Amino acid sequence: MAERVRVALDAMGGDNAPGEQIKGAVESLKLTDNVQVILVGQEEVIRRELEKYEYDKDRIQIRNATEVIETGEPPVNAIRKKKDSSIVVAEKMIRAGEADAFVSSGSTGAVLAGGQLLVGRIKGVERAALGILMPTLSGISLMIDCGANVDARPEHMVQFAKMGTIYYREMIGKQSPTVGLINIGVEEDKGNALTKATYPLLKECAGINFIGNVEPREVPNGAADIYVTEAFAGNSILKTYEGTAGAMMKLIKGSFMKNLKSKLGALLVKDSLKETFKIMDATEYGGAPMLGLNGLVCKTHGNASYKEVSHAILQSVNFTERHLTDKIRTAILSEEE
Amino acid sequence: MAERVRVALDAMGGDNAPGEQIKGAVESLKLTDNVQVILVGQEEVIRRELEKYEYDKDRIQIRNATEVIETGEPPVNAIRKKKDSSIVVAEKMIRAGEADAFVSSGSTGAVLAGGQLLVGRIKGVERAALGILMPTLSGISLMIDCGANVDARPEHMVQFAKMGTIYYREMIGKQSPTVGLINIGVEEDKGNALTKATYPLLKECAGINFIGNVEPREVPNGAADIYVTEAFAGNSILKTYEGTAGAMMKLIKGSFMKNLKSKLGALLVKDSLKETFKIMDATEYGGAPMLGLNGLVCKTHGNASYKEVSHAILQSVNFTERHLTDKIRTAILSEEE
Repeated sequence: MAERVRVALDAMGGDNAPGEQIKGAVESLKLTDNVQVILVGQEEVIRRELEKYEYDKDRIQIRNATEVIETGEPPVNAIRKKKDSSIVVAEKMIRAGEADAFVSSGSTGAVLAGGQLLVGRIKGVERAALGILMPTLSGISLMIDCGANVDARPEHMVQFAKMGTIYYREMIGKQSPTVGLINIGVEEDKGNALTKATYPLLKECAGINFIGNVEPREVPNGAADIYVTEAFAGNSILKTYEGTAGAMMKLIKGSFMKNLKSKLGALLVKDSLKETFKIMDATEYGGAPMLGLNGLVCKTHGNASYKEVSHAILQSVNFTERHLTDKIRTAILSEEE
Repeated sequence: MAERVRVALDAMGGDNAPGEQIKGAVESLKLTDNVQVILVGQEEVIRRELEKYEYDKDRIQIRNATEVIETGEPPVNAIRKKKDSSIVVAEKMIRAGEADAFVSSGSTGAVLAGGQLLVGRIKGVERAALGILMPTLSGISLMIDCGANVDARPEHMVQFAKMGTIYYREMIGKQSPTVGLINIGVEEDKGNALTKATYPLLKECAGINFIGNVEPREVPNGAADIYVTEAFAGNSILKTYEGTAGAMMKLIKGSFMKNLKSKLGALLVKDSLKETFKIMDATEYGGAPMLGLNGLVCKTHGNASYKEVSHAILQSVNFTERHLTDKIRTAILSEEE
């Protein structure tokens, strides 16, 4: 039997670490046979937590890392100083070929900075970008970049579109996914300096299926398979999407509790609502991969549950099995010829 | 009796023009005694539409304007070429002192370009900004700039904060509204070049109640009274907010129709849900004023209903009664001393 995919999991990062992280690791073994999880973090803490579960001991290991990077720390500084932190140790494992992928719910800044500095970019990739799969009314869309590079340049945006296309094709299985440029207007000449300069480049770019500008209002409807954008806008749209959905759920729940009549009605619509909202459950899609690195770094939400963690591990296995890093490398190399 | 506030209404602009516009004008007379509406557009079309209603003939006039600017037209070009369009005629009326305010549901680009070119900026205002009142879980917030200036500079953002504070104070009646800088992280050093440069300026700015960075996820919760941002992000957040709320409503309605049980439940929760969602109804707040001009230009959604139009007219009356243009002028002048 071939070797299993080795996923290093940050056992210390995230609002619910290490509990949800370790539960997610155990859970992931049930989702796929082809994974080996290496829990990176404080050995004693991890061991104590692991004792709660029954699992295949051959498929979960521990790599000790004594330090923890907190969310508030300046990322580059933290990466440089805390050499024995779970993030630094795990990212060095990828570089050394000791792991195929790294999943973390910890400090986004530190995970990304480490991705650039320790794992390193694929030759020819100018900026690695964070892509996230978002559920929409008509399927799944990828938002790239949703948080890695602010102040991106037009050439970077073209690479985001290429890397996003490869990722979407392989992970979702659609041969020629549509690419929309996030913009505050649909006409070609609309937008800011960045979108105006990016539009013609995307239009002429071979190997992507560019459909023009897409307004943020259309994002929840799934107007394109891939939304290309710079990180400030991408992150703002993603977070507004999540925040608004959360606020609406609060409102709905509040209105159900208003009186006896509404409480009774709520009992009757509950199952149907639950089923409907399941399609909008982002945790099904795991984490956000950082595309363009020499190996996979995958970031989940800071408050990830075990379910999101286990799906991010599964996603990392799929990514590795499909040789996505090599495929991105080939695509980027070919543009330099 | 003092003269009434004169509001010029673009009878030709908007997806539902002239029907909803004219109905909105008639409706507005019931909302306040202190308004005189001047319908600007093709006289014959307006006259035919007006015949459907009973109203005080002294309080609605018509100003003929034969041309119509379409949404797709390049804004500055349209303003320059179509001199007899409703937008150009109405904005010139403001400049000439023949109207106090202009409400339009037409081409945002043309309304804004005309605002700068025909109405003109208050001396000292570097960029006029579009502010919009958004309902949130904890009240009402103002997003400024939500669409007028892309690629704004830090100094512009400070003026947005000042103008927004005056507008919010007068319209909502809160003496010292909180100001948050929209950013993709809460710490001072987070964000892009623009937010990093803007943060210290807002921190030192007298006369505003700056509370630091606010992440877009917190916008629906009403984390600040005023959200200061550059237009690309502001518009993206606003449109994502609206789009997500719309998508969720579609999902909810769909789930209610799923089967007999859910249909029955829907009947029971309907009233309570309706009441709850009323607080999130943006049309209650009228349109988005362009702050910083020598007179009020107010933009509604393109698909505005008569209700939104009538509320925008009422809002324009409040704006004028409270001498907001003068108050903004005084605040901006004082910074030059």
